[in-house]
Amino acid sequence: MKIIIVGATGTLGKRVTEAFAKEHEVVRVGNTQGDIQIDITNETSIKAMFEQVGAFDALISTSGKGPFLPLNEMTGEAFKTGLLDKLLGQVNLVLIGQHYINKGGSFTLTSGILADYPFAAGSALSAANGGLNAFVMAAAAELTNNVRLNVVSPNVVEDSPAYFDSFPGETPVAMDRVVSAFKKSVLGIATGQVIRVY
Amino acid sequence: MKIIIVGATGTLGKRVTEAFAKEHEVVRVGNTQGDIQIDITNETSIKAMFEQVGAFDALISTSGKGPFLPLNEMTGEAFKTGLLDKLLGQVNLVLIGQHYINKGGSFTLTSGILADYPFAAGSALSAANGGLNAFVMAAAAELTNNVRLNVVSPNVVEDSPAYFDSFPGETPVAMDRVVSAFKKSVLGIATGQVIRVY
Ligand SMILES: NC(=O)c1ccc[n+]([C@@H]2O[C@H](COP(=O)([O-])OP(=O)(O)OC[C@H]3O[C@@H](n4cnc5c(N)ncnc54)[C@H](OP(=O)(O)O)[C@@H]3O)[C@@H](O)[C@H]2O)c1
Ligand SMILES: NC(=O)c1ccc[n+]([C@@H]2O[C@H](COP(=O)([O-])OP(=O)(O)OC[C@H]3O[C@@H](n4cnc5c(N)ncnc54)[C@H](OP(=O)(O)O)[C@@H]3O)[C@@H](O)[C@H]2O)c1
Repeated sequence: MKIIIVGATGTLGKRVTEAFAKEHEVVRVGNTQGDIQIDITNETSIKAMFEQVGAFDALISTSGKGPFLPLNEMTGEAFKTGLLDKLLGQVNLVLIGQHYINKGGSFTLTSGILADYPFAAGSALSAANGGLNAFVMAAAAELTNNVRLNVVSPNVVEDSPAYFDSFPGETPVAMDRVVSAFKKSVLGIATGQVIRVY
Repeated sequence: MKIIIVGATGTLGKRVTEAFAKEHEVVRVGNTQGDIQIDITNETSIKAMFEQVGAFDALISTSGKGPFLPLNEMTGEAFKTGLLDKLLGQVNLVLIGQHYINKGGSFTLTSGILADYPFAAGSALSAANGGLNAFVMAAAAELTNNVRLNVVSPNVVEDSPAYFDSFPGETPVAMDRVVSAFKKSVLGIATGQVIRVY
């Protein structure tokens, strides 16, 4: 398979890339690093990537940012940056990518535990993640040519110790389990699923 | 109680306003009609409303729009309008309103069944609704002064026959049940809840 990984140079993306690169052709996409550089908040740059890569079988996104701010300091502007980056950025990989992906291909996005549980300062990322999970459930049912779409929703991961204090009482998940969730989506048959790694 | 209803002049809002106006002081807010006109996509206009109304006990929003477009025709721009209106517009009523609402007050927003189930052409509204539900779950836990926050998620309603064909197999819900869901939020003790009317 030819697999595009957007966010290939990040904490999650590095591990996911290593795993898939053993048996597949991987195109590493980042913002400042990687084989190709794009900005998921810019539709023109997403289109340019698909034009450059040509036909592909799977796209994995381990990208997407949003603000971490206490609710009483949260502004509409800050909230919007999370919606336009983590949510719309990943949605646009699907909206644009659906016109380039091979028959039987798959898209796998990344949301996170904030969709399901409240953590201090997390309201904007909760909204972005909840929006992603609902989008995947809905959009998967409209995709044609047996193209599938899932989203992996990880808890805080063991490779991100800087985030541990923001998730009190959570057991950081092993990177192997996160990698397995992406395998489950790309190599399995499911579509429209939220694959939780909690 | 003094209750602000944003969207008071709409299909849902009219019925909700009638019901609460029997025992409470209601401020009817619309976009082109009502006691006060605002645009929820414009933070300045939201702030001006709160300055004009002064202290209040509850805010209900029955506003929020998004595009209905098949996935293969959906563009990032169209998708974004739903995120900025139905999702961020209602979120901003809370982000700004938290600094004006009385102790023990409540916010009640409106999402919809598209958060939970796929319907053709609904992916942008699914994302907006799923984002709202997750925001409410998360933000409710950060509100102070016993201020509560819930969201009502209705199925298609009996007063909107134009939408029936878009929800095949669904039984349109009686307006009384929708009104009761808003009463449950405003007059009850729950917070962080998605009140489904399916
Ligand atoms: N880390 C966790 O514990 C955790 C837990 C749950 C969910 N998540 C989610 O998992 C995803 C990845 O998290 P992470 O911790 O691996 O992030 P990360 O280490 O910051 O990596 C981000 C990756 O995305 C790329 N990127 C950044 N901005 C971009 C843009 N505008 N356009 C395209 N690519 C961009 C980066 O490229 P460059 O390297 O070139 O800048 C990098 O490859 C995020 O959605 C995050 O919310 C993470
Ligand atoms: N109808 C249904 O079957 C149904 C089912 C599930 C969920 N919902 C949701 O329930 C909510 C209300 O739906 P509805 O059918 O009652 O809508 P509607 O009849 O179109 O009414 C919309 C209301 O919002 C106001 N409004 C429109 N744009 C606004 C803006 N930019 N800023 C502030 N106010 C604005 C309108 O004011 P003016 O009259 O002054 O223009 C009107 O009061 C929406 O979020 C909808 O998605 C509806």
